[in-house]
Amino acid sequence: MSLNATPAGERVHIAFFGRRNAGKSSLVNAFTGQDLAIVSDVKGTTTDPVYKAMELLPLGPVQIIDTPGIDDEGALGELRVKKTRQVLNKTDLAILVADSTAPLGQAEEELLSLIKDKGIPYLLAWNKADLLDSVPEEGENTLWVSALTGLHIHELKEKAAALAGQEGPKRPLIADLLQPGDTVVLVVPIDKAAPKGRLILPQQQTIRDVLEAGAAALVCRDTELALTLAGLPKSPKLVVTDSQAFAKVARIVPREVPLTSFSILMARYKGDLALTVEGAKALHSLKDGDKVLVAEGCTHHRQCEDIGTVKLPRWVREATGVEPEFVFCSGREYPEDLSPYKMVIHCGGCTLGEREMKYRQRTAADQHIPITNYGILIAAINGILYRTLEPFPDMAHLLP
Amino acid sequence: MSLNATPAGERVHIAFFGRRNAGKSSLVNAFTGQDLAIVSDVKGTTTDPVYKAMELLPLGPVQIIDTPGIDDEGALGELRVKKTRQVLNKTDLAILVADSTAPLGQAEEELLSLIKDKGIPYLLAWNKADLLDSVPEEGENTLWVSALTGLHIHELKEKAAALAGQEGPKRPLIADLLQPGDTVVLVVPIDKAAPKGRLILPQQQTIRDVLEAGAAALVCRDTELALTLAGLPKSPKLVVTDSQAFAKVARIVPREVPLTSFSILMARYKGDLALTVEGAKALHSLKDGDKVLVAEGCTHHRQCEDIGTVKLPRWVREATGVEPEFVFCSGREYPEDLSPYKMVIHCGGCTLGEREMKYRQRTAADQHIPITNYGILIAAINGILYRTLEPFPDMAHLLP
Repeated sequence: MSLNATPAGERVHIAFFGRRNAGKSSLVNAFTGQDLAIVSDVKGTTTDPVYKAMELLPLGPVQIIDTPGIDDEGALGELRVKKTRQVLNKTDLAILVADSTAPLGQAEEELLSLIKDKGIPYLLAWNKADLLDSVPEEGENTLWVSALTGLHIHELKEKAAALAGQEGPKRPLIADLLQPGDTVVLVVPIDKAAPKGRLILPQQQTIRDVLEAGAAALVCRDTELALTLAGLPKSPKLVVTDSQAFAKVARIVPREVPLTSFSILMARYKGDLALTVEGAKALHSLKDGDKVLVAEGCTHHRQCEDIGTVKLPRWVREATGVEPEFVFCSGREYPEDLSPYKMVIHCGGCTLGEREMKYRQRTAADQHIPITNYGILIAAINGILYRTLEPFPDMAHLLP
Repeated sequence: MSLNATPAGERVHIAFFGRRNAGKSSLVNAFTGQDLAIVSDVKGTTTDPVYKAMELLPLGPVQIIDTPGIDDEGALGELRVKKTRQVLNKTDLAILVADSTAPLGQAEEELLSLIKDKGIPYLLAWNKADLLDSVPEEGENTLWVSALTGLHIHELKEKAAALAGQEGPKRPLIADLLQPGDTVVLVVPIDKAAPKGRLILPQQQTIRDVLEAGAAALVCRDTELALTLAGLPKSPKLVVTDSQAFAKVARIVPREVPLTSFSILMARYKGDLALTVEGAKALHSLKDGDKVLVAEGCTHHRQCEDIGTVKLPRWVREATGVEPEFVFCSGREYPEDLSPYKMVIHCGGCTLGEREMKYRQRTAADQHIPITNYGILIAAINGILYRTLEPFPDMAHLLP
């Protein structure tokens, strides 16, 4: 696959920020080895973020975001803060370029705060180090470079690759709940919407994780669940169900047997569980006419569409007794401005990839709009959200 | 996805055959609605097969193969038979274009025999029907058309779409062996070669088919198999294992419990089981220095490579006590001429698609070269091939 064949969404995103006078664009050029942005000594020649693909070894294909230079004086301003947040929502690694002959200004301090608030890995690159009498030693997040002489550009790239390549702290999927020899029952309903001859990825991942824990996965349909449970010599360690079968499965599984769903396992694994559980609570403050955004990642997948456009709105109306106005979006058309909406209900996002889902969640969080997902909301509507959270000792803080 | 984005290997292949004088190329043009081949009234202007993509509704994307015209007189000749077989090995539907003002010649009769021998669906299109006083009614495989006036071209396309769209008679995967409430144990070893966080397609398909039969699939690793079997209140209906764990699993599963492998399930499902079981028997007539072709569909997949290039040759040497010469090919580089080889050992072909695998098997069968696959051969080497065939009442004829 050629370099350009890597879709932008799968590239690690590295964003450069800095004051107009710090030589940010020169440093981006030194970093990428190409004339990426117009460089001049007139302040602020970069007026829009510039996106550029490059190969950053040993990391692989990356997307460089060269952002507009910030003012040398004063604070960031509301619009700039908003725009920076948007860029940061897509950023895996932020590089703040500063002038090593001057202290950080107010705008730079604010930028650093924003970056740290979002928990995004960052580097502070002190440029123009060639002008210093002596160059300080690099720190954990800090190093001194010169776009002019090439000083420590190699080190900057190495450090960037190392930082951007670090995966966020992943929580376990299911293995941490299991002992070797345990049996987990997985409920996989087969309806017309299920992909023919395949299992969806969360189901595959769960089976894999069960096996890696030395446990066994007993897979059955909802229609055979009662029979399957009755045939077991002892209760399973856990029952995991597809969210759509929640209501039925919750009635079959004895109250003392731990029960959860693939959606909840995946949300915990990706680190979204707290956010989406909080988001689901907005259900109970909906009023007639409130706008609810139902967002789907894919455009063709009949299953999501049916759930999103037909079943979920009906369930929400039944559960709340109110008539919200449902607005639907699918594919890539997720709005930047979520202010018209009282809540966002997003699909599992299996086709979107983690970066895009994180971006969507961060965008909602920035605007203080509750965001939840189909599986969590269905659990909430069925009144079993808290029951499905009980199996996770590390999620006890989400229980009432 | 645009029309041309459909890879050739996924398109239904429709091949046109005919005598030089029957107006085959004109009919192909009328069929595809484009100037596909050079058309002239000089005999035999098409000298090489021409491949062309088109959309044939309601079937979808198809690949048209316009083959060189055959002589108007005499038999096909050895080379032409060989070339025609090669084209037919890739063909889903053959259309023989004949001149309705003349009877079928010897070469056309031979072509029809070849097509019928291979069991390939076909249509006999009597062209130049505009020259007839009255046009006969169409038969099951026969119709009268005119490339010149457009007579029945629409009907030809409809009939072609219907015939080419028919799936071959598929055997069941596993559901026919199961009753609702049964439990099937699936043994899925997890080694470094297993794809991370996923299950390979044969495993997914098997689980799906078990569920659709109203049965339950109990999935465990080979290392937990003994423990898992001991924990069951009664023997499972069937144990299915990954081929690589055959020897170990066969020792653990009691002789009275039916045992088979994912490879054997898949070979039965695709209709290759008899061919590949016959092919495996060639193992016992190998002599020192005999060439054995080990063919792999993919070029990158470490697992296949290790099995194919390292483990299988060792196992063959150990099982036979002879030293054959192993020749390896991977990806698309499968030789047309298999005569140097005493047998072909092919991987499961999970990345190749059914059309390409059928082509490879037919090519071997044409040349009377035994062909088997990894899973079947591993069962044979472990001395449990016949045991793993016992679960299938419809495969009793393969047992000794």
